[in-house]
Amino acid sequence: MQPSKINFMEKFSKLPDEDYSVRIIAMMNNYEFKIVKFKGEFIWHSHPDTDETFIILDGRMMMHFRDKLVELNRGEMIVIPKGVEHKPTSKEGYKALLIEPEGVTNTGEVESEMTIKKIEWV
Amino acid sequence: MQPSKINFMEKFSKLPDEDYSVRIIAMMNNYEFKIVKFKGEFIWHSHPDTDETFIILDGRMMMHFRDKLVELNRGEMIVIPKGVEHKPTSKEGYKALLIEPEGVTNTGEVESEMTIKKIEWV
Repeated sequence: MQPSKINFMEKFSKLPDEDYSVRIIAMMNNYEFKIVKFKGEFIWHSHPDTDETFIILDGRMMMHFRDKLVELNRGEMIVIPKGVEHKPTSKEGYKALLIEPEGVTNTGEVESEMTIKKIEWV
Repeated sequence: MQPSKINFMEKFSKLPDEDYSVRIIAMMNNYEFKIVKFKGEFIWHSHPDTDETFIILDGRMMMHFRDKLVELNRGEMIVIPKGVEHKPTSKEGYKALLIEPEGVTNTGEVESEMTIKKIEWV
């Protein structure tokens, strides 16, 4: 039968050795669970149609908003409300779980060299 | 502005000292994020209208299905497909994050002394 457990670190171990990598690991209804590894500075963007959730699994994320900065460490989560501009950065790098409806573009309404057309499964 | 981080252990520290406790900690669109603390044997049930996701934050969960048993530890997750009967048990106790649409009853289609009519925020 289908339901099997998913081990986050086992999934992360399959990612390429790059500063930014995103892969889908599970679906719940029409929502995707994605693992994200990131180091550096992302771009300002927002998602006009949906909230999105980050759960930090390792490292540290600095989530920039236009009017404040939120530091997130392992064992913490944040829900980015739809339409709210944000920019994650990380000097040390972070590993996170990202939850949002299927098909959401990683850079939201902004087209950039960081835009991923189609996110693969791992 | 609204988006603030949520620290799981800080939220768990506010739960009553009982073997079973569930509280809402966040919403993403119409989905609820709930923290669950559980020790003992839950009841067989299913959710006819939705998948649900457990992310184990601490301890060990034994997720029983009619045809198999899945052991889940910290750093692991499982998506229970809609309509699939399941029963979580835990000798040691576990802490988990539960993600599903708002208003889903904890015991699914089964009414029992474990049924919680209205889950509160913490």
